[in-house]
Amino acid sequence: MSYELYWISGSPYSWRVMLALEIKGPDYLSHRLDPGKGEHKTQEYLSMNPHGKVPVLTDGDTIIYESMAILAYLEAKHPEPALFGATPEETGHIWQRVFEVENYIQGPGAGMAMPILFGEIEEKRNDIIACARVCHDELSSLEKILSKSANLAGDRLSAADVAFYPLLKILQRAVGHEDAKTLELGFDDFEGLYPKIAKWAGSIESLPGYDKTIPPHWR
Amino acid sequence: MSYELYWISGSPYSWRVMLALEIKGPDYLSHRLDPGKGEHKTQEYLSMNPHGKVPVLTDGDTIIYESMAILAYLEAKHPEPALFGATPEETGHIWQRVFEVENYIQGPGAGMAMPILFGEIEEKRNDIIACARVCHDELSSLEKILSKSANLAGDRLSAADVAFYPLLKILQRAVGHEDAKTLELGFDDFEGLYPKIAKWAGSIESLPGYDKTIPPHWR
Repeated sequence: MSYELYWISGSPYSWRVMLALEIKGPDYLSHRLDPGKGEHKTQEYLSMNPHGKVPVLTDGDTIIYESMAILAYLEAKHPEPALFGATPEETGHIWQRVFEVENYIQGPGAGMAMPILFGEIEEKRNDIIACARVCHDELSSLEKILSKSANLAGDRLSAADVAFYPLLKILQRAVGHEDAKTLELGFDDFEGLYPKIAKWAGSIESLPGYDKTIPPHWR
Repeated sequence: MSYELYWISGSPYSWRVMLALEIKGPDYLSHRLDPGKGEHKTQEYLSMNPHGKVPVLTDGDTIIYESMAILAYLEAKHPEPALFGATPEETGHIWQRVFEVENYIQGPGAGMAMPILFGEIEEKRNDIIACARVCHDELSSLEKILSKSANLAGDRLSAADVAFYPLLKILQRAVGHEDAKTLELGFDDFEGLYPKIAKWAGSIESLPGYDKTIPPHWR
């Protein structure tokens, strides 16, 4: 029995699962879908995930979608190295941080990055600027957390780190876009503003197998 | 050591944790906060949850916020009865459904219910109607799921049921509001439209201890 992963290049949710698979170690068969051809909206794909979103992980007859649910599944199948902690306190705090990423960062992050990456800067200028302010507030909170611990939910690498890292990279890719320069979103000196986050991101990038997870169309 | 729960009457996220505590069984000390007095925004409360949201669960020195993280914590402390499954497949599918509730139902549900309950029907009329359409689509999907299994992620009661139930009750409370009648949102015959959901909700309401969890200001 082997895993099969359906993913799209640049999808942060796909990236989470690819990182978790590298950390946990099992081999998997990779199915990169082309969104331009609607490969995530075919009848066959919708029979796996009716929402038509990536990623989907299959394991024999078992089909799982929603990135963090896939991480919880992989944790149950491959307990070591643990991504959801070893004690109730660790487990609770890791999930707490995962939901903070989902509930407080994902929305404004997408609100800033997506219009830049999909060429809607003029129409959504005010929204982008408003979302960028929220992103700075949230990044400042994470910077404080990372001044106290090596990772986002304690010193050990956890699912919270895997959840946030791809969102950070997409945010950075968006603000570095040529067309975003006139917006003056305040991210030019990212390492100067958020040195702990920059260092933490570097630690993720030094994980074995990391290079295999980089979105191919970014290379 | 005993649990202490900080909550607000009518908060669906608080209600989730109260249901889980009744299902798992431990006693807890209840701290009902008065949002009218800003009791969830005091310095003392913000030192527990910097977002100023309910619920918060404390367990001695351990402080957890984000409702589903609290459920994961309680699962680790009190494994039986299991709310996150007994096998990797069950665990994965339960979390999958939890994230479907969070990512596809919570937003449109709040977009429909909150303006009705907080007296903004006229300003947000079109938004309410648009969100109601999405809610009907999502409820239709859940109706199909509940025609195949007794609960939302299989036959056993799980965290997915606990996650969705309070959102459903708030949605139903909103559409039953006197001021919402002119909107013709299509929920008048809920039991006729969604008989399986209505039956499933009844099964939640027959759980031991359920009555203790009903928002006091609804009585």
